Amino acid sequence: MKNFADSMNGLDTSPIRKAFELAATIKDPINLSIGQPHFPCPPNIINSLNEAANLGKTAYTLTGGIPELKQALSEKYKSANQINYATPERILVTSGISSALLLLFTALVNRDDECLIITPYFLMYPSMLKFHGAKLHFLPEDFTEEDVKKLNFKNLKLIIYSNPSNPTGYIFSKSQLELLVGVAEKFNSYLISDEIYELFDYDKEFISVGSFYDKAITLSGFSKTYNMTGLRLASIVAEEEVIRELTKLQQYTIVCAPSTTQYAGLEALKTDMSSYILDYKEKRDFVYHSLKDYYNIKKSKGAFYYFIPIKGNDEEFVKRAVLEKKLITVPGFIFNQTNSYIRISFASEKSNLEKGMKALQELA
Amino acid sequence: MKNFADSMNGLDTSPIRKAFELAATIKDPINLSIGQPHFPCPPNIINSLNEAANLGKTAYTLTGGIPELKQALSEKYKSANQINYATPERILVTSGISSALLLLFTALVNRDDECLIITPYFLMYPSMLKFHGAKLHFLPEDFTEEDVKKLNFKNLKLIIYSNPSNPTGYIFSKSQLELLVGVAEKFNSYLISDEIYELFDYDKEFISVGSFYDKAITLSGFSKTYNMTGLRLASIVAEEEVIRELTKLQQYTIVCAPSTTQYAGLEALKTDMSSYILDYKEKRDFVYHSLKDYYNIKKSKGAFYYFIPIKGNDEEFVKRAVLEKKLITVPGFIFNQTNSYIRISFASEKSNLEKGMKALQELA
Repeated sequence: MKNFADSMNGLDTSPIRKAFELAATIKDPINLSIGQPHFPCPPNIINSLNEAANLGKTAYTLTGGIPELKQALSEKYKSANQINYATPERILVTSGISSALLLLFTALVNRDDECLIITPYFLMYPSMLKFHGAKLHFLPEDFTEEDVKKLNFKNLKLIIYSNPSNPTGYIFSKSQLELLVGVAEKFNSYLISDEIYELFDYDKEFISVGSFYDKAITLSGFSKTYNMTGLRLASIVAEEEVIRELTKLQQYTIVCAPSTTQYAGLEALKTDMSSYILDYKEKRDFVYHSLKDYYNIKKSKGAFYYFIPIKGNDEEFVKRAVLEKKLITVPGFIFNQTNSYIRISFASEKSNLEKGMKALQELA
Repeated sequence: MKNFADSMNGLDTSPIRKAFELAATIKDPINLSIGQPHFPCPPNIINSLNEAANLGKTAYTLTGGIPELKQALSEKYKSANQINYATPERILVTSGISSALLLLFTALVNRDDECLIITPYFLMYPSMLKFHGAKLHFLPEDFTEEDVKKLNFKNLKLIIYSNPSNPTGYIFSKSQLELLVGVAEKFNSYLISDEIYELFDYDKEFISVGSFYDKAITLSGFSKTYNMTGLRLASIVAEEEVIRELTKLQQYTIVCAPSTTQYAGLEALKTDMSSYILDYKEKRDFVYHSLKDYYNIKKSKGAFYYFIPIKGNDEEFVKRAVLEKKLITVPGFIFNQTNSYIRISFASEKSNLEKGMKALQELA
């Protein structure tokens, strides 16, 4: 056999995908592994998707996105995120957050560049940064000023985190974000804020770092908010020079986000999702009250996950949960560098969640 | 300003994009620069796209594509391309040919690997291979056995071409394809056949190299055939081990092709496009008869382009065409290493094409 590129050696099949495949083999599983909302994509968004198709919007769009969507995103970033410099020239529309990460990491990272990842993390950050040959550093999400003072780097290229966090639901305080801005400035590095879960903010604590730092690179998605994960749409706000480079790279790789999805995105931005968010807030509370006497957990503040410390090894716990309870969870080693947690999602029907809580109580 | 990755230095904004932007600034241009069909995406395909959305198919699909589409593609490759080993396990569904190239080049190419490109070429091949640090070699499309005998490489990683060719409409003979297979075998390298224009084969001369070479990597698209360029769908047939690596990489980058588009792809494969192809055959003939006494051209055999030798410099010709005739064409330097050609597309309304031919006659 001929060789693949050397960097392919470090890339494993995603263990989340493995959980997905495991769930497919079990009859009536209690699936708490899913990283997408359980509610349907709202019908007005579906209608606008179909309308775009009926109007023949099936051709390439401009590389950076249709102007109407860039304009609407500009207004959204200004009003919802207080990112007042988010003009259309500073926005790139792309094909989901994973494509945004692909463009960013490819455009920014040289082999041996240092990258700082807040931990626990979304698994794609370390996987793809390692793929690009970066040297990884980690900082726990509950870092303090003392922790930050101790940081030292030779050539820090970027800092990355998700806020609200996948997998913990953690939301950074303003003073923590200010500390990260300080690190970015001190080491002349990019600060990437992945805000795909921004609407899943149950106690109104979420702040976009871009609201007070105009060099931030802010990623926003449509996938989780409107259950459009398969339709592939996200956007990036960054300095104009960064957007220019990413757009150039998009020409040669992604080409453009799907045309009809971009029109659906226009409608999505007008859609009130608050009833769905309220439902998830209740589920967030329900999980907390169900598990707090069994596991050492804090109430999740955002996204739709709990990252639960367990006794023993995470992979063994996950296996036991499947065998004894038909319960599908995700082992925590994917998201941090320990084997001491599992991740569950509460993006689920209440009845499924009730069964899952009972199973978890019995497994504690 | 912080640095971008070193490899970004060599990447220019696509000159085709520049032609596109130029056309947008001119009132009533005669646009012969467009690389996509002028006919609409057929209504039955639009209906199946909408039906998928109405059925709520907005979530992630399996990484490698929905099983129904892989099955239908398997049958298509067997019956239309005589690729009898094209089982679903050897197929990956991805988000357009550009994403297929992204996956392939990323998964296969190490810095300093040699790559052989048949020239004239689709501009993405050399741009993205250079981006990955490859050393490029070129072989003219009308190569003979003598030319192939002279080839020598230290570590040839891959050979790539489009067949039918963008920009020339050239179609390789079986003996030429056999010569390329010989090179791939001799130097233990991958052979990548980009067949996105396969249906635009006016004299029934096109053969898939995969019909007689089971290590071929064959790329097929839906974009050009059904005017779905904005819907982002293509597929790859390759050895199972290659598909496994590409699928792994897709998990971390593209994630999956757009869900609703995959369902539309199922319908597309059932759609008879022969009337459209016949229309383009007539246009192919019309352009030939209009220009043969003015330019030294051969009749295009496929795709929907003519690559026309011009007097003087291509970029100056293109500028003059705009200023004097409002005619938009693409300079040839993008597609080969000379400044002696322009590319025109006959994917156009007849009236526009007539005006374009008159303008080109006057510019000769």
